[in-house]
Amino acid sequence: MPISTSITKLLGISHPIVLAPMDLVADARLTAAVTAAGGFGILGGGYGDEQWLTRELDLLEQTHTRFGVGFITWSMAKQPKLLDLALERKPAAVVLSFGDPRPFVDRIKGSGALVICQIQSIALAKEAAAAGADVLIAQGTEAGGHGVSRGLVTLLPEVVDAVGKSTPVLAAGGIADGRGLAAALMLGASGVVMGTRFYATHEAAGAPAAKERIRAATGDDTQRSIVFDISRRNVWPAPFTGRCLRNVHLDRWLGREVELLRHQDEESEKYAAARRENDFDIAAVIAGESSGLVRDISSAREVVDRVVRDASALLARCSPQALSG
Amino acid sequence: MPISTSITKLLGISHPIVLAPMDLVADARLTAAVTAAGGFGILGGGYGDEQWLTRELDLLEQTHTRFGVGFITWSMAKQPKLLDLALERKPAAVVLSFGDPRPFVDRIKGSGALVICQIQSIALAKEAAAAGADVLIAQGTEAGGHGVSRGLVTLLPEVVDAVGKSTPVLAAGGIADGRGLAAALMLGASGVVMGTRFYATHEAAGAPAAKERIRAATGDDTQRSIVFDISRRNVWPAPFTGRCLRNVHLDRWLGREVELLRHQDEESEKYAAARRENDFDIAAVIAGESSGLVRDISSAREVVDRVVRDASALLARCSPQALSG
Repeated sequence: MPISTSITKLLGISHPIVLAPMDLVADARLTAAVTAAGGFGILGGGYGDEQWLTRELDLLEQTHTRFGVGFITWSMAKQPKLLDLALERKPAAVVLSFGDPRPFVDRIKGSGALVICQIQSIALAKEAAAAGADVLIAQGTEAGGHGVSRGLVTLLPEVVDAVGKSTPVLAAGGIADGRGLAAALMLGASGVVMGTRFYATHEAAGAPAAKERIRAATGDDTQRSIVFDISRRNVWPAPFTGRCLRNVHLDRWLGREVELLRHQDEESEKYAAARRENDFDIAAVIAGESSGLVRDISSAREVVDRVVRDASALLARCSPQALSG
Repeated sequence: MPISTSITKLLGISHPIVLAPMDLVADARLTAAVTAAGGFGILGGGYGDEQWLTRELDLLEQTHTRFGVGFITWSMAKQPKLLDLALERKPAAVVLSFGDPRPFVDRIKGSGALVICQIQSIALAKEAAAAGADVLIAQGTEAGGHGVSRGLVTLLPEVVDAVGKSTPVLAAGGIADGRGLAAALMLGASGVVMGTRFYATHEAAGAPAAKERIRAATGDDTQRSIVFDISRRNVWPAPFTGRCLRNVHLDRWLGREVELLRHQDEESEKYAAARRENDFDIAAVIAGESSGLVRDISSAREVVDRVVRDASALLARCSPQALSG
């Protein structure tokens, strides 16, 4: 049974399920697979690598996929021609996360694409809405990768109350199954954004060993920190931290970040080598708390089908009387 | 329309809404008010103060209220006669939070009371279930007061998957309205535990100025830290931190905890004075992220009525088709 919301109409999709634009992991293949399954695929433009972006946009063009492109705003702002490069391919939407969206809103809208801003607080939600965002993503602290500290279960309804009358709000962080989609809808969301769950699919551009670690992890096994950012010489400003699966390297350095900085030269070399070799005892698997809800590696279509089927069943049988038993 | 779940049957209550046993704030008056409204009141035994506990239990006895008693387990363990004192009054349940429940489970069950264990991770959930807990409370990081770092939206369904077949699970942390109750039910909870929302009621044993700060705050205005624990000479072991509203004192010392420890003598004196004088620029208001969802000071009955009414309406109209529009 399809779940129809304001976001399915706005994006012209069948299901209110959006792929998180995970840096490098959400490549053209995964983006196309999520759209083909009835959701909305968003390419993980991330920090912005022109060669990677051009190649993946070429691939999307060949498949005639309806898609979005996501950027880490503060990084893309250093080379804004990457935004032009993306807009030339006529994405249906651009997602801006982590940074001031205002310099880019008019250009994106002028191209015919929707502006989707990911925010982590009420203050940022109000700023993004005032800047003209067409859609907001409320990202809870449960999310993998960079984020802040507010839990989704309070952030989402408070954002909906603040801006939801005029702006659809998507829920991100911690959603990996039909229960999460149904709960997000109860909290006022128009749909969900899923990263970790789609990382653990056949189509995602991640190492099989990384996907296997996500499948095996519980939600207790992730941690927000700046350890992997220090280790890859990529430190973000406060209050942003990055959530990834705990591993030998994180357990070694967590709480000893000052000492890690003193050893940054040798540790960053080791870290870069570990990334090349897919040694995930050292290199981070960037995944969220919902790893604990991921119990298989499947196809993107199976994920979408299952989430929609389970959420529909919950919503259909969720009358107050039917809950008893 | 009543919402009936396994917990309403087990506790013999009308609505799946439970008062969080907030230390000192959840006194006999608030406990009785929540039970009278159709929920389940739990006295905030907290660290354990014999004089306070005796007085409040006397008051509850006079009102013939069905009630529970909550303790901070590691603190109560230092004077276990307080548990006996509570059990003599025949509570329907005892809530154990933060510490090993095993030494107390048999004694509580022997008295006829249910054992409810509050947990913050999958590991703790499995331990509590193995120890014989009748009910678990999955407490998300959104909660006010002491807690850990996992978001409710992932912790709750993962706990339900781990132990929910045999043990009802209640959701705590970040729930303050009907949307939160409906979402918690979608995630597999049998009900919700609310602290912050009940703090901001007429009946709660808190200063009016503290309640007003909760009403005025957004969810961005709370912070987990150990600043107020250092300031009141009450430091907890890692990984526990305490969430409270940001104020002048917290903003001054956050990130400078080592320096605060160096000034603990003078700062703890100032802090104690501020607590006596209800100076909440220095003394902490211990409240959670759901402060941003609290927009009035009302009666406990109004809170229960509103949460049930709004959740029922959401659940009644939440068929997949009806969400569109």
